[in-house]
Amino acid sequence: MIDAALIESLKALVEPGKVLTDADSLETYGKDWTKHFAPAPSAIVFPKTAEEVQAIVRWANAHRVALVPSGGRTGLSAAAVAAHGEVVVAFDHMNQILDFDVYDRTVVCQPGVVTEQLQAFAEEKGFYYPVDFASAGSSQIGGNIGTNAGGIKVIRYGMTRNWVAGLKVVTGTGELLELNKGLMKNATGYDLRHLFIGAEGTLGFVVEATMRLERQPTNLTALVLGTPDFDSIMPVLHAFQDKLDLTAFEFFSDKAMAKVLARGDVPAPFDTPCPFYALLEFEATTEERADQALATFEHCVNEGWVVDGVMSQSEQQLQNLWRLREDISETIAHWTPYKNDISVTVSKVPAFLRDIDAIVGKHYPDFEIIWFGHIGDGNLHLNILKPDHLSKDEFFDKCKIVNKWVFETVEKYNGSISAEHGVGMTKRDYLTYSRSEAEIAYMKAIKSAFDPNGIMNPGKVFA
Amino acid sequence: MIDAALIESLKALVEPGKVLTDADSLETYGKDWTKHFAPAPSAIVFPKTAEEVQAIVRWANAHRVALVPSGGRTGLSAAAVAAHGEVVVAFDHMNQILDFDVYDRTVVCQPGVVTEQLQAFAEEKGFYYPVDFASAGSSQIGGNIGTNAGGIKVIRYGMTRNWVAGLKVVTGTGELLELNKGLMKNATGYDLRHLFIGAEGTLGFVVEATMRLERQPTNLTALVLGTPDFDSIMPVLHAFQDKLDLTAFEFFSDKAMAKVLARGDVPAPFDTPCPFYALLEFEATTEERADQALATFEHCVNEGWVVDGVMSQSEQQLQNLWRLREDISETIAHWTPYKNDISVTVSKVPAFLRDIDAIVGKHYPDFEIIWFGHIGDGNLHLNILKPDHLSKDEFFDKCKIVNKWVFETVEKYNGSISAEHGVGMTKRDYLTYSRSEAEIAYMKAIKSAFDPNGIMNPGKVFA
Repeated sequence: MIDAALIESLKALVEPGKVLTDADSLETYGKDWTKHFAPAPSAIVFPKTAEEVQAIVRWANAHRVALVPSGGRTGLSAAAVAAHGEVVVAFDHMNQILDFDVYDRTVVCQPGVVTEQLQAFAEEKGFYYPVDFASAGSSQIGGNIGTNAGGIKVIRYGMTRNWVAGLKVVTGTGELLELNKGLMKNATGYDLRHLFIGAEGTLGFVVEATMRLERQPTNLTALVLGTPDFDSIMPVLHAFQDKLDLTAFEFFSDKAMAKVLARGDVPAPFDTPCPFYALLEFEATTEERADQALATFEHCVNEGWVVDGVMSQSEQQLQNLWRLREDISETIAHWTPYKNDISVTVSKVPAFLRDIDAIVGKHYPDFEIIWFGHIGDGNLHLNILKPDHLSKDEFFDKCKIVNKWVFETVEKYNGSISAEHGVGMTKRDYLTYSRSEAEIAYMKAIKSAFDPNGIMNPGKVFA
Repeated sequence: MIDAALIESLKALVEPGKVLTDADSLETYGKDWTKHFAPAPSAIVFPKTAEEVQAIVRWANAHRVALVPSGGRTGLSAAAVAAHGEVVVAFDHMNQILDFDVYDRTVVCQPGVVTEQLQAFAEEKGFYYPVDFASAGSSQIGGNIGTNAGGIKVIRYGMTRNWVAGLKVVTGTGELLELNKGLMKNATGYDLRHLFIGAEGTLGFVVEATMRLERQPTNLTALVLGTPDFDSIMPVLHAFQDKLDLTAFEFFSDKAMAKVLARGDVPAPFDTPCPFYALLEFEATTEERADQALATFEHCVNEGWVVDGVMSQSEQQLQNLWRLREDISETIAHWTPYKNDISVTVSKVPAFLRDIDAIVGKHYPDFEIIWFGHIGDGNLHLNILKPDHLSKDEFFDKCKIVNKWVFETVEKYNGSISAEHGVGMTKRDYLTYSRSEAEIAYMKAIKSAFDPNGIMNPGKVFA
């Protein structure tokens, strides 16, 4: 922990009342959605300008104080956890939308703008900000950029990376860089913008972002299709992708759906029981387009890839179909799930899923596995539910062993140990399953260039 | 120049006959499409495998020999020119398509695969590779990645960057890195892939690339619209972008079109003379969609933004309309044009264009300016034609002065001095007009990490 005199010198850099050290604030701002580490920051500071951020970083360099960036604190890898006496830099008071241009289709945001706030602003202006996920109501743009947030529309719109036209960052030496300036085309050397996206605050802090917008989608329509086995999901994906620009292609298992249906507030999509379900969405811009979707559905039934299915005919039905997928996470929270967010290339998903199912099933036959995820992106969320007879500690101890098997399988399939949740502290010690020693050495060299004193979110991504 | 013994040791690293030192080869492989520098390489080496590339790089480190990568040599910034006794590493014999997967929608390419070869392969498999530009018949994928090539479909599909799912690179120390492995989602630390894209071979060489494919577009349809002034192009862009997913939005001046029409092999789009023309393209997937385009056209006429226009009704008409835009470059080559490839954010284009027009017109009233470009991306190609009474040298001397004014204007508008042609040697000394000293210092630190001995394409991007 840093001493009282140091805290006083920090207070001099920002507006009165913008440094907090009370126990509640330290507890609240010292953690994200992970529960692995006890929060223990020294102070929380709330800058209001880029200049204040620069001053804080220079102060931290002078006194060798570690800084942790804090956005909406919805992260799932402990990248925003301050467990070692760090000073948390919280962007809650840099939450303004600064500019908008209808021809550029861009919005200039401070880092503390909440994802939903940007989505709503875009809509008000007749546009669409397409990056969307469960925590959009509290996650902040700065955090989304730091983790290159993904979500449920990646198959059509890509990750957060695709929507960043420009970034202002304060590096680990306190320099302000203006990266790419909102341009669509700019071939003037290394694109440092892309280095900061997904760097989890280890190179510097985002202090302003120019985000691109898209036209609003028209008449979004969803289908839920039941398949006879997991492998059939692949040709279904291909058949639809060939005909339509899908805005989503998700999947979940019968076990996942059963948990959601058991709550009794969403209707079943149809009666035929199926082991797996695909949820896909597209813009039914014209009737012809909707007919094309139905014809493809029929084709999939004729080929034996689909057993039964339903297409939404109203906004209400669209919402209900989506809830089958979106309510899973919250529903299974009751069973203290062990979660993993892994990816492989799309074509390898069936074999990969089978391998992991077999390994877990063999060693822990009493573990219930709940699969769901963004299958169109090769991104699977593996959830193992805690059996009632095990204590939380016993369960998580066994899961650590499972972890190793899962990551070995990921490595065998040349996949990613963290598809969209980042590395932070929870995946840090497993990084070599996805990145080579040489790559990690280059990453560390880059880190040294931007943060020579190692004050920017130390201990995250790598030790 | 390096000595004969060194050349012999290089020959030992590759197959027999794969090192050339004859005058013709040195001349051919030592240059790109720029004419500013006399080619003077020491030798040309043609590796066939990633291992051979590694051996060449290790050899170059041991003997401190500078290496220059060579693809299709269609670059416009002298990034692939070897003017100082370097060894050119040419990828012509690493030109195979290695793999394809219909579910992943990816193609694994060696770096010497020609852009058109990838486009044709994709088509054969029922897919589409959307990055397209005039030199697609000879440019290679490795070079496209090195310069982050753009072209005529960026407004819909983005730059080459968007289509790279994975990269194998050999760094300046001879290490082989496998970056992102073709994954759609991978949040495991810094995305080094994006650092190598657009690095112009200064960090390492691309030895394999996994490129994404897209579904084929349906019934591409073009409109050419005449506008009463340049400013009107902006609301026209907005009106169409609001209704349709445009696959292109280009513009050209009446002077540009007049030169093309004077050749007599393309018909005029319509009779009404206009100072500026927009060419836009979209997928007329359904009749409704085509009707929507016509309604928007009518709306633009009613608002006074468009004077006259035409929409293609056949593949032949589509080609003819495109030729009005695509033939400009070749047509004006006759006048020894001074070329610049600059960009600003879309909304600033009208004021920016007016400023440059005014500056050039004031100082050189006898210079004819030909404007065209990818207006939907804020990317303008400024071409000044050589007046007959000036010699080539006199003209280019005056253009050097113009260059300074143009780049000062670019800086004033926070734009890019090279939108899609890269920096290479021709823009190197102007880099500070678009990138800050701090940014350049970070770029150099990154360069040092990947290429500590400075053997990878030295003198390109920065001195």
